[in-house]
Amino acid sequence: MTHETLLTLADVEAARGRIGPHVRRTPVLTSDVLDGAVGARLFFKCENLQHIGAFKARGATNAVFALSEADAARGVATHSSGNHGSAVARAAALRGLAAYIVMPEGAARPKVLQVERLGGRITYSAPTQAGREATVAEVIAATGATLIHPYDNRFVMAGQGTAALELMEDAPDLDVVMAPIGGGGLISGVSTAAKALRPQIRVIGAEPAGADDAARSLAAGRLIPLGQPDTMADGLRASLSADTFAHIQRGVDGIATVSEPAIAGAMRALWEALKIVVEPSSAVPYAAIREGAIDVKGKRVGIILTGGNVDLDRLPWGPGA
Amino acid sequence: MTHETLLTLADVEAARGRIGPHVRRTPVLTSDVLDGAVGARLFFKCENLQHIGAFKARGATNAVFALSEADAARGVATHSSGNHGSAVARAAALRGLAAYIVMPEGAARPKVLQVERLGGRITYSAPTQAGREATVAEVIAATGATLIHPYDNRFVMAGQGTAALELMEDAPDLDVVMAPIGGGGLISGVSTAAKALRPQIRVIGAEPAGADDAARSLAAGRLIPLGQPDTMADGLRASLSADTFAHIQRGVDGIATVSEPAIAGAMRALWEALKIVVEPSSAVPYAAIREGAIDVKGKRVGIILTGGNVDLDRLPWGPGA
Repeated sequence: MTHETLLTLADVEAARGRIGPHVRRTPVLTSDVLDGAVGARLFFKCENLQHIGAFKARGATNAVFALSEADAARGVATHSSGNHGSAVARAAALRGLAAYIVMPEGAARPKVLQVERLGGRITYSAPTQAGREATVAEVIAATGATLIHPYDNRFVMAGQGTAALELMEDAPDLDVVMAPIGGGGLISGVSTAAKALRPQIRVIGAEPAGADDAARSLAAGRLIPLGQPDTMADGLRASLSADTFAHIQRGVDGIATVSEPAIAGAMRALWEALKIVVEPSSAVPYAAIREGAIDVKGKRVGIILTGGNVDLDRLPWGPGA
Repeated sequence: MTHETLLTLADVEAARGRIGPHVRRTPVLTSDVLDGAVGARLFFKCENLQHIGAFKARGATNAVFALSEADAARGVATHSSGNHGSAVARAAALRGLAAYIVMPEGAARPKVLQVERLGGRITYSAPTQAGREATVAEVIAATGATLIHPYDNRFVMAGQGTAALELMEDAPDLDVVMAPIGGGGLISGVSTAAKALRPQIRVIGAEPAGADDAARSLAAGRLIPLGQPDTMADGLRASLSADTFAHIQRGVDGIATVSEPAIAGAMRALWEALKIVVEPSSAVPYAAIREGAIDVKGKRVGIILTGGNVDLDRLPWGPGA
């Protein structure tokens, strides 16, 4: 893979072969209740049931297993307070490598414990983007580890796209495929696979109105960085990279934005109808349909539910919400 | 099927053929975290992801589709404020029959709406066991409908057992299979199938200490009816029938009882590790393992997660718990 051209289906298929033994083929769930509420046939790809509770296991595993022996021997590094850090730690452990995970001081205790359980070596940084990047640079200088960026990495993007390969096999003849957009790694891989396999499919992204850099960028035709994100969907508070934006320009037909109450309502509806735990980010595409931000009446729609890592003491409903 | 002998594997296999097109083959999930916490390999059969959110769809569908044309033409009836009522309504709609569902006055609104959505014809009764039985008797006298009892029915029991057939295919070589016990229909079918397919398997039931009629009955060697149940596991507040007790005596190797805090803790652990919504009843077998009421160290254990119908405003943790 080079940056002279964009990702192709072959990259996503290569990722599938590479990560196959190490990730789950997650189920695709349906619900008559959810379908009836919006007048479409919805197919939910349950990446909340993936290892480490998120699709991030796919991309990180692909990137870690694609390293040369020489690079791999020096380990891998990333900075992430979320699912990607766990995914890198797990993938490195599977290959027997050191994983250096930079986490901000004050990171949530369950996330720290999960990275430790997976064998990640944690270095704490100042809780700012600059602090995190400085610390990971120090770690890399000291160890020679390879940085595995959470989305600005072709192998990560291709790995995330494997979710679409499985979804389209289990739910044939889709008219639309939807995924949320944070840094854009998932939708870059998904759109690459989906458009190659089924050129007439519409690929629709979804974003919180409070973190709508992809929608603005696509409309403007140039990358507009995210300002201060304001959304409960903590997985979507990242800015696109130039490379993910190029993939979005090529393969995404539209981006819907949704309100915070719509996210909370959609999340609850998914829990109640599908009997699964999904995090707010996962609910954003269904929220867009429910809120009427995208019209899919009568269509067959595949939706990637990205993860299920949520604090059960802080749900966005009930007396404390 | 007659009551002169107990159920056999053939009855469960016949049920599988009958209900196959109408129920989901639910996934079996695993979790390294849950395994590590108890030192065993656990395989969770996710009947919370079944139609109507519970295994009850299996037995009700088998009973409804086993009716003769003549009986079927007069419809079916049951009294249930829970999952079985929805399951009967759904099965009847699939076969194009009338379903008369007796529900207690004051039944929870979501349950009423679900039965209505599935096409059930609701008759309200006094909210007592006697009131419910009297009302269902009146409905049957007026319509000629066939009663589909929630567990004291051989076709229902055999249908529930199909969950074990699937579980044992997807998780081979199990040492132990566990299910919660309410009225005993599920474990009657599960033990019939499991012991026939794998005679060396141990079948272990699990009950809340506050609804432990099966444990007491098995220990005493005679049916001891449940007094006043006291448990959050609302699906397990039923007494065994003579017939389910006979199946338990034949096929169940032991029954573990668990405390209410253990149920709440196990339920939360299942949500967090598996990323699924299960109701308190579903958590009872895993609670028994966690609490040390049963020793499965080093074993391969199949556990049936029975359902996922839970009020998200009333979870057994957090400030209000």
